[in-house]
Amino acid sequence: MTEQETAKYVMFFGEGSKDMKGLLGGKGANLSEMTRMGIPVPPGFTITTEVCRYYYAHGEKYPEELREQVKKALERLEEKAGRKFGDPNSPLLVSVRSGAKISMPGMMDTILNLGLNEECVNGLAKETNDERFAWDSYRRFIQMFGNVVMNVSMELFHDKLEEKKKQQNVQYDYEISAEGLKELVKEFKGIYKQETGEEFPEDPHQQLWMAIEAVIKSWNNKRAIDYRNFHGIPHDLGTAVNVQMMVFGNMGDDSGTGVCFTRNPSNGNKELYGEFLPNAQGEDVVAGIRTPFPISRLHEMFPGIYEELLEIATKLEQHFKDMQDIEFTIMKGKLYILQTRNGKRTGLAAVKIGHDMAIEGLITKDEALLRITPQDVEFCMFPRVSWENPKRKTYVENGEIKVAPPIGKGLPAGPGAATGIIVFDSDKAEKMKKENPDLSIVLVRDETSPEDFHGMVASTAILTIRGGITSHAAIVSRQIGRTCVVGSEASGLRIRKSNGEFYLVGKSGEKLKEGEWITVDGFDGTIYIGRLPIASIAEMPPELNEVLNWADKVARLKVRTNADKPEDTAIAFQFKAVGTGLARTEHQFFEKERLPIVQDMILAETEEEREQFLSKLLEFQRTDFEGLFEVAKGKPITIRLIDPPLHEFLPKEEEIIKHIEELKAKGDESEQLQKLTKMLQRVRDLKEANPMLGLRGCRLGLTMPGIIRMQTRAIIEAALNVQAKGIEVHPEIMVPLVGFPKEFKLSRKIIDETAKQVMEERNATIDYRVGTMIEVPRAALAPEEIVSGEDGAEFFSFGTNDLHQMTLGISRDDAGKFLPYYLEHGIIDNDPFISIDQNGVGRLMQICVENARKIRPDVKLGICGEHGGDPASIEFCHKIGLDYVSCSPYRVPVARLAAAQAALRDNQN
Amino acid sequence: MTEQETAKYVMFFGEGSKDMKGLLGGKGANLSEMTRMGIPVPPGFTITTEVCRYYYAHGEKYPEELREQVKKALERLEEKAGRKFGDPNSPLLVSVRSGAKISMPGMMDTILNLGLNEECVNGLAKETNDERFAWDSYRRFIQMFGNVVMNVSMELFHDKLEEKKKQQNVQYDYEISAEGLKELVKEFKGIYKQETGEEFPEDPHQQLWMAIEAVIKSWNNKRAIDYRNFHGIPHDLGTAVNVQMMVFGNMGDDSGTGVCFTRNPSNGNKELYGEFLPNAQGEDVVAGIRTPFPISRLHEMFPGIYEELLEIATKLEQHFKDMQDIEFTIMKGKLYILQTRNGKRTGLAAVKIGHDMAIEGLITKDEALLRITPQDVEFCMFPRVSWENPKRKTYVENGEIKVAPPIGKGLPAGPGAATGIIVFDSDKAEKMKKENPDLSIVLVRDETSPEDFHGMVASTAILTIRGGITSHAAIVSRQIGRTCVVGSEASGLRIRKSNGEFYLVGKSGEKLKEGEWITVDGFDGTIYIGRLPIASIAEMPPELNEVLNWADKVARLKVRTNADKPEDTAIAFQFKAVGTGLARTEHQFFEKERLPIVQDMILAETEEEREQFLSKLLEFQRTDFEGLFEVAKGKPITIRLIDPPLHEFLPKEEEIIKHIEELKAKGDESEQLQKLTKMLQRVRDLKEANPMLGLRGCRLGLTMPGIIRMQTRAIIEAALNVQAKGIEVHPEIMVPLVGFPKEFKLSRKIIDETAKQVMEERNATIDYRVGTMIEVPRAALAPEEIVSGEDGAEFFSFGTNDLHQMTLGISRDDAGKFLPYYLEHGIIDNDPFISIDQNGVGRLMQICVENARKIRPDVKLGICGEHGGDPASIEFCHKIGLDYVSCSPYRVPVARLAAAQAALRDNQN
Repeated sequence: MTEQETAKYVMFFGEGSKDMKGLLGGKGANLSEMTRMGIPVPPGFTITTEVCRYYYAHGEKYPEELREQVKKALERLEEKAGRKFGDPNSPLLVSVRSGAKISMPGMMDTILNLGLNEECVNGLAKETNDERFAWDSYRRFIQMFGNVVMNVSMELFHDKLEEKKKQQNVQYDYEISAEGLKELVKEFKGIYKQETGEEFPEDPHQQLWMAIEAVIKSWNNKRAIDYRNFHGIPHDLGTAVNVQMMVFGNMGDDSGTGVCFTRNPSNGNKELYGEFLPNAQGEDVVAGIRTPFPISRLHEMFPGIYEELLEIATKLEQHFKDMQDIEFTIMKGKLYILQTRNGKRTGLAAVKIGHDMAIEGLITKDEALLRITPQDVEFCMFPRVSWENPKRKTYVENGEIKVAPPIGKGLPAGPGAATGIIVFDSDKAEKMKKENPDLSIVLVRDETSPEDFHGMVASTAILTIRGGITSHAAIVSRQIGRTCVVGSEASGLRIRKSNGEFYLVGKSGEKLKEGEWITVDGFDGTIYIGRLPIASIAEMPPELNEVLNWADKVARLKVRTNADKPEDTAIAFQFKAVGTGLARTEHQFFEKERLPIVQDMILAETEEEREQFLSKLLEFQRTDFEGLFEVAKGKPITIRLIDPPLHEFLPKEEEIIKHIEELKAKGDESEQLQKLTKMLQRVRDLKEANPMLGLRGCRLGLTMPGIIRMQTRAIIEAALNVQAKGIEVHPEIMVPLVGFPKEFKLSRKIIDETAKQVMEERNATIDYRVGTMIEVPRAALAPEEIVSGEDGAEFFSFGTNDLHQMTLGISRDDAGKFLPYYLEHGIIDNDPFISIDQNGVGRLMQICVENARKIRPDVKLGICGEHGGDPASIEFCHKIGLDYVSCSPYRVPVARLAAAQAALRDNQN
Repeated sequence: MTEQETAKYVMFFGEGSKDMKGLLGGKGANLSEMTRMGIPVPPGFTITTEVCRYYYAHGEKYPEELREQVKKALERLEEKAGRKFGDPNSPLLVSVRSGAKISMPGMMDTILNLGLNEECVNGLAKETNDERFAWDSYRRFIQMFGNVVMNVSMELFHDKLEEKKKQQNVQYDYEISAEGLKELVKEFKGIYKQETGEEFPEDPHQQLWMAIEAVIKSWNNKRAIDYRNFHGIPHDLGTAVNVQMMVFGNMGDDSGTGVCFTRNPSNGNKELYGEFLPNAQGEDVVAGIRTPFPISRLHEMFPGIYEELLEIATKLEQHFKDMQDIEFTIMKGKLYILQTRNGKRTGLAAVKIGHDMAIEGLITKDEALLRITPQDVEFCMFPRVSWENPKRKTYVENGEIKVAPPIGKGLPAGPGAATGIIVFDSDKAEKMKKENPDLSIVLVRDETSPEDFHGMVASTAILTIRGGITSHAAIVSRQIGRTCVVGSEASGLRIRKSNGEFYLVGKSGEKLKEGEWITVDGFDGTIYIGRLPIASIAEMPPELNEVLNWADKVARLKVRTNADKPEDTAIAFQFKAVGTGLARTEHQFFEKERLPIVQDMILAETEEEREQFLSKLLEFQRTDFEGLFEVAKGKPITIRLIDPPLHEFLPKEEEIIKHIEELKAKGDESEQLQKLTKMLQRVRDLKEANPMLGLRGCRLGLTMPGIIRMQTRAIIEAALNVQAKGIEVHPEIMVPLVGFPKEFKLSRKIIDETAKQVMEERNATIDYRVGTMIEVPRAALAPEEIVSGEDGAEFFSFGTNDLHQMTLGISRDDAGKFLPYYLEHGIIDNDPFISIDQNGVGRLMQICVENARKIRPDVKLGICGEHGGDPASIEFCHKIGLDYVSCSPYRVPVARLAAAQAALRDNQN
């Protein structure tokens, strides 16, 4: 290696660039880049990662040239700074920081104010005319150095500090007097000596070299090694060491400090946005001692600096091609940029900024699409609490700032925020809403079932005490776009009955009765007492609309919707879903006027009797489907035949028994009693040990073919009626829960025969398809016979909810007892009911896709589980070559973006 | 094709051989073979399948040469027979039969007595000196010919026959007088003419050609085509036509007829066994008019014929290398062999015959192993009803023959037959058995749960009204070797309460109360009223033992057992299981003195409290495991950690409520009431929507690690104790319900830590392994991470019960509502809970085996579901390369044979 002779182990800021992260680490590379750009960064230099690697490869020794190179760099730094290291009057102080190629938070802390000693501290005091500041800086330096470099326990320093405050009878650190700080410095040095057996180093050069070695050694401390193991970061990258001049914004009235954004992080508007505080340190802002001014004051007070900052901000944004969050300090009239990074922003701002920058030509449309996150889009879609200060949870009411008291917390299951009055009963909720359509209701239930559907529709938000984010409440809420929080019991929030009244009771005993206001935050799961202000977004912001149009052009996956009713379907189509991927037929069975007919149908003792009730249902179903086809205007609508077990349509056993006993007590011998007795028998007959794996789906249809015939007839008749109006129709009939090929083929036979008969009756034809839901693992493992032949399935839709339940052997209704534990203890990384379990269920899906396409290359493949709206799952669906994803209406925009991102990332690879 | 010129379309019996089935059909080939061997077969000839193929290939025309060849063959036949076709004095009568390469039962019926006409019938009457016989033969011929050749409805003949019997005031066909038969012949001919428009053919040659064409045409009738489609038989094979001389055993005292077996079909002894009737036709025996003599009478009456028959029998057995079932007729002192075929036999006989023939050198041991069926072995193992006549269900009681009245029928779920008194309650059954150990009890329950275990143990047989063959009752019965019938409700047999007493009530109202005798046949599922005689086999017959020793030498798959207790384990080891593949630990929790401790453990509110109860259970479990290790004497014992959901150990909700209400009514405020209230709360907390997919298996162990620690400690301590006695121990600890790799690894960590601690305490080591059950589809799809690394699984055991339930999405407890329908309607071919669903679940198993072995080639793979005892499943396990199967103790012999057969068939391929 002759390289070593000429090796440059130290690079001054400006000598490197942002592309040299491997050599300079991320931080060093960026500081160099800014310096090269002419941005006034406090000068400094980087000891390269090469030194770290050398150090470990040579038994913890530095390359010979290092000392000399550091010395030269330090001299250059002194020159640039106009200050000298260890100068008792105007000392150069530096920070020393690690910096690896890949950021490793928490690997090593920063050491600030290095260069201070008993002499220099006085010089600093004089120079800043602030003895307190100088001694406090010194005190902090000793503390940081002791802890970071020499491993002295932070607690020892902390205890001493607390003691001092007690002594001085003050509450905050900054109230300690200069005298007290001087004493603390002495005491800290005592601690240092006691713990290390050495005096605290007075020589700044010794301080520097000790700090450098500590940084290099930190690369191989246990914490860092564990971190790299966990994240799969190579161990031989090494860390760089950054040495940079300290600047202070509190050196008088010609100094100051601030933070600014190149665009408004809240709404994305193109304007300089930020805060500024004259004669202050960044810490002062953080500690909340003084209230900062808006950035406009900088304009007034330091017009020149403002212009310079504006220019720099523009330059940085243009350079980094993203909205920048810039920290700056003015020291004695000179502007320093301490840091620039891509700024955090709200989803709304992210969409607008991405859109605007693409229009401005700063980035490409593809870049905009990759930069806007699905969460950003989600954020745009839902109403939220308008906080005065989101951190402190304060809001404005009648001009006053108030704090919102949380009463509990659950799992965020349906995004958005909503406020409303508590109602504990679905019927009551529906009734109240009918009487007063402007009423905002929060339906509070232990858990919900299909029979709560009307109550959920009538409410603005749903709160359930039990259940997980894939419980009935959660799924239906997302489906119908309601804010929802589930499983509040974990936080102690429950429903309690007392004196015949229901109450919502918090952990600390707070009691809310029906009619009182609460606010539910579906973004973080918090429930607040009272009526908080909610900001709602009525439609997609125009920038989002445009961005998603770009998305549609690059996406290969189409986005459909899961929607059962014309209203929901219309919303999804407004969000540009290209069809319905899942329209369930059974929700409509629960409607008030239909349920008794459904129940009669179930109780029927003969085929003839059953046919009679089925023909009544036919009328209803036909109307339902007509509504869907009319809204669709030619878009395909996938209609799933009846799926749930029949007992779901009957009352609960206990309810029937109670009712029977009531009637008997009255001596009633009516027909109703007989019917109830029969119903009780049927409910008991239908009882199942594991209903999820019982008589449902196509099993139901095959053993009661009259149901398939009725539903097919309703679909085809509706299609013919709508087609007759000149509207195109493309029904796709989906058979649920197929495991064995003949289950599908026999179902299809009934469907085709019925369709043929109806079309012959009407002497017209409908372009319909028949396919199946892939939700039983067996079907996914062996799809060949299901797709093969004339009577094979024309499309597959992965019902990933059930497919996960069966493949993982986890009932989502019961998972609450162990899945949270699993997530908490790292047994699983993600909730498989939110994001596809790619290594397990995903493999199964891939096997299915490959085997099905081998037999029928044109089989249309989609997914209609809850996962259809999850970005990671959408990317996976793209990878395995599905044709479409289907998700709830309010997820459609998110899915459109995710589909585009999947395609773009795929192209990049 | 110059072949046609020389083509031989007709082959006389003896010209072909048994290997010419393609050309002569199965029947023709065998008749030729026997003739070649010199066996006195009635002469005849075969029109080859070539004719049939030609016929269809040439627009339903025969090859030119055919007529001439048939004519010649007929002349040769007349010569051999010493009779002439159409001879009015001594007419040659023939049978005409189809005969394809692959037997197609029901394709076409036989035509007998062809050659009869108005003239010949009188000759026959004279010759046989039996006018009745001659006219009855003629009557039958017309009937068969009319129906088979001309498609005249059989009903028309039948009605006429019935009319005649009424007229003559007789009950049976054979009571009709000769005069009546003559009239019938006339009337039948009338029917023939009326239906066909033609006279019944008088010319025997015309009769013959019409019959030949009918046979050839029958190849392409709908029934035959459907049959071939269904069985995948090619349509171009064609059928042969066999024309054979009729012989009659009723031509005087020098004639007779009989059937004999070359060995005893009941017990396999090597002796000529059969029946004989002088001057009679085979039909006479079938019609039950005369009682046949044992074959020994043939020896007395026709010593020469007997010797000849004995010689022929020996020759045929030697030739066909299997026990033969031979039909013979003696016509005027001459012995004719009409048919020989492999004889049906009982399982016991099959084993003895297979064994003996191998010892005799007639077949190889491998052939014996392939010939004995698993059902034969099964048959050897279980007691059964000793019928006097199994067809008529008659038995002997006090010397009298009685008919057993069936009261219902269910699914045969545990083989064997048993008789006992009805008991409806498990506690009562246990109590009664304790008081009277000789008592034979049939436990009758709606269904059983783990809490019935002690009652099932106390009973000889179990009958459940509900449930399928994989219900709790069925599985446990097979496990503990009890006769079991489940799901009798299908036949109308139910339990009914009346006046406070329970009754077993049959469909027709038969009522049996507790204490009355019933008999349960676990082979066919029938339940009989009363105490039928049962024949039981105490141990493996010596021949079976020897045959299975041969089996073990060729099998590659090892056979282990599923057994939880030392007693059961000992039985399995007596049947030469090489280890335990599944010892469940939780059955023991249900024992009377333990259940309260288990319940206390579940109700414990703190970890400390729980530990206290766990340490009590530790004592019990250690003793359990010591018992197993002592019996095992070094054989590996796979112990599965606790699996079922906790609520199974608590009483049912209703029971607790009832109990609480009783106590409250008494004004009781005791500790018990408090405990019950707590228990009620816990039962409600533990309630699950789908318990099969809920908190159980390793999910339980991980969320309550104290249980894993206790069980591991009990296993290792027990192993150390037994090892200290100088007995080898090889425990294999199995973690249930693993889906995610970390579930296994975390469980293993707890196990290893505990084992290490125990071994350190004792300062000794145990050679133990840790593995997992593969029952969650996810684990089978992605086993790599589960087996990988130091902390990976050392063995996998497919828990095929749950693996099927999850992969098929079918809860076996609930499958009764549609699986029987599926089987009946051909939606599935086999019950997947009996035989592995090879195309679905089987694929998954194969994926698992391949992926697991890729990572860890030495991972030991087995199966411990119910399928482990099913021969087809065992063959599949062999094919995919498993190391062992594990089954219930009484299935071990069956599994050993099946494992050998799998290996032998594999070698053949």
